[in-house]
Amino acid sequence: MKRFLTFACLILTVGFVFSQMASGQSDAGFKPASSNIQGADFPKISADNSVYVRLKAPDAVKVLVQGGDGLCPKPIDLVKDSTGNWNAIIPAAGPGFHYYWFMVDGVRVNDPGSDTYFGYGRPTGGIEIPVPGEDFFQAKNVPHGDVREHWYFSGITGKWRRAFVYTPPDYEKNVRQLYPVLYLLHGAGENERGWSLQGHMSFIIDNLIAGKKAVPMIVVMDNGYATARDAPAAPAGFSMKDLSKAAETLEQVYVKEIIPDIDLSYRTIPKRESRAMAGLSMGGLQTMLIGMNHLELFSYFGFFSGAIMGNILEDPKTAFNGVFADAASFNKKVKLMWFGAGSGETQFVKMVEDSRKKLEGLGIKSTSYISHGTFHEWHTWRRDLNEFAPLLFK
Amino acid sequence: MKRFLTFACLILTVGFVFSQMASGQSDAGFKPASSNIQGADFPKISADNSVYVRLKAPDAVKVLVQGGDGLCPKPIDLVKDSTGNWNAIIPAAGPGFHYYWFMVDGVRVNDPGSDTYFGYGRPTGGIEIPVPGEDFFQAKNVPHGDVREHWYFSGITGKWRRAFVYTPPDYEKNVRQLYPVLYLLHGAGENERGWSLQGHMSFIIDNLIAGKKAVPMIVVMDNGYATARDAPAAPAGFSMKDLSKAAETLEQVYVKEIIPDIDLSYRTIPKRESRAMAGLSMGGLQTMLIGMNHLELFSYFGFFSGAIMGNILEDPKTAFNGVFADAASFNKKVKLMWFGAGSGETQFVKMVEDSRKKLEGLGIKSTSYISHGTFHEWHTWRRDLNEFAPLLFK
Repeated sequence: MKRFLTFACLILTVGFVFSQMASGQSDAGFKPASSNIQGADFPKISADNSVYVRLKAPDAVKVLVQGGDGLCPKPIDLVKDSTGNWNAIIPAAGPGFHYYWFMVDGVRVNDPGSDTYFGYGRPTGGIEIPVPGEDFFQAKNVPHGDVREHWYFSGITGKWRRAFVYTPPDYEKNVRQLYPVLYLLHGAGENERGWSLQGHMSFIIDNLIAGKKAVPMIVVMDNGYATARDAPAAPAGFSMKDLSKAAETLEQVYVKEIIPDIDLSYRTIPKRESRAMAGLSMGGLQTMLIGMNHLELFSYFGFFSGAIMGNILEDPKTAFNGVFADAASFNKKVKLMWFGAGSGETQFVKMVEDSRKKLEGLGIKSTSYISHGTFHEWHTWRRDLNEFAPLLFK
Repeated sequence: MKRFLTFACLILTVGFVFSQMASGQSDAGFKPASSNIQGADFPKISADNSVYVRLKAPDAVKVLVQGGDGLCPKPIDLVKDSTGNWNAIIPAAGPGFHYYWFMVDGVRVNDPGSDTYFGYGRPTGGIEIPVPGEDFFQAKNVPHGDVREHWYFSGITGKWRRAFVYTPPDYEKNVRQLYPVLYLLHGAGENERGWSLQGHMSFIIDNLIAGKKAVPMIVVMDNGYATARDAPAAPAGFSMKDLSKAAETLEQVYVKEIIPDIDLSYRTIPKRESRAMAGLSMGGLQTMLIGMNHLELFSYFGFFSGAIMGNILEDPKTAFNGVFADAASFNKKVKLMWFGAGSGETQFVKMVEDSRKKLEGLGIKSTSYISHGTFHEWHTWRRDLNEFAPLLFK
């Protein structure tokens, strides 16, 4: 009975708050999110980063809102008002970018007030939560590089593939200058636009270069999925076996197509000392699976919440054709083995610790960074890039 | 009664067809659209370009599909099968790209099987219908230019703005070469990504350059909306007064910010003889409103289904400070006044005819092109660009 009263009281309170809001009095503290599409009043964010969402759906029977870790991983019910709008307030959200969506009578619907981003294997809405005192990922009054949509035909997959290529601010002026290259990989269910759109990678690198914290570099963001021509689609599972299998074709595409194409198309320094590879989640795993087989191509590695699970390092002496067996040789060749995770994504923090412990047991040097108060989400990876990029090519 | 029987018969037939399809037998003629996101089986297209759409929505009460002209401007009901999937077949669609969406219990929902594109003022699904015998807008085995995401701070609007800039295939190699520039504007409810994403402009220009039909050029695609810093948002209406008012700030942004920024950032030929402006629908109107005031900046103009209505040319002798009054001088300065429309968008065909007639009455030369069998939609504008670009900078 007590629980019922508490619940009824909550409903009444929510109803009262929304009726107040409907009359335009109590939502004064809420302002449209910076990520809203032009002219959209909702979603709105309060000073404590609570998020007020609204969807017009007069005929719907049940509407929920759900989002990623740091926003609302558990669905929250919206309440219908007399005008046919459904409303909810998501309590204090975590910093940075989060995916979110509505469920309208069981169907997933993106908020028309927000833009969509490719996540969860489909276009998915997203919102930018303010991060007081942290602006390394914002556009600032510094010289800006370009992010280029670059198409190339892949004989291995039999398809045109699209990569995004960041060229640094001075690239247009110093037309004889050659640049090192970071290959930066996205996560499962995302695509080659993730790092520039959700990740704000160009602003992060622009700001680091302007602050003389990172050297000017080219950054290549390709699609993390590759299926060989005429082969059945790569397994979509998340088992280590499925992910490893899916990475085999991608490895061929990197070695035989992406890297040669980039070296041909842009003013790169085409040497292992000037090439880095890093990725988030699935992309972190791919960095391990592809990178460790190709020390002749890369000398810096970043694993951002890398999905490095299972037996990949179980027998590290024999893994990757024994690349870790001679620690002195490995440490000489590889300038950086960098692991990152968000403090809130505990299983990935454990993967970082386990991986580093295993490498340490073999005498392989590595370093790590934990992003405070973030989860398996873009704000972790934005911070990762901001910490990682300054260590490259020096 | 006869109509009832016909209707009942149709329902039974549709039900039978879908039950056959559910058992995997009768949809053999349908293949996933080329525009589907990776791994999505639906929407599917038949040999006669009928479109089979499906949405999983077991709890929904009513589901419709609707799209742009050339697809299904009038909503079509979907029929629920025993597995909770709703199905419909849209009869023979027109060529090229079309926007479309579902209405689920009154809420607009994008098909999770298709990517989204910015249209109708929000992210909106789209599908690519095959166009037999017409491949000028497809990626081909020719050298490809890059489309660059280029950020700049606009003091006039007080905001960071994003432009997309196409640089031609030889731009990277001929590092001393300067290039002419086409400023290409999108339509109402769309944004600066429209021309590269929906329009395939890079493939169109790549193919024209490879075929030596167009000269290598830079193409700049900026956002068509601009609101002065601290001003209330520009009126969203579609009256001539609202659109003209909204274009005033954009004019300032073009003259004082976009064009100087592009001339500073890229290897342009910064002269009126090497500058063109063209736009579709609202962008065609803006090309008229901005361009005719600035013959000192541009010498080629394209109006693609240009929304040039009302009194803009009513008193053409005095319009735009009398720019049309001296025909000989105008014809000498302006190399091209090019009007285009799709044969199916009759009101725009009429606008083309009316505009040209008024200009002709003043002795102003112009030319026009009608795209056969297309409407107020991207396939019209893809063809427009393919016809227009070869006439530039020669």
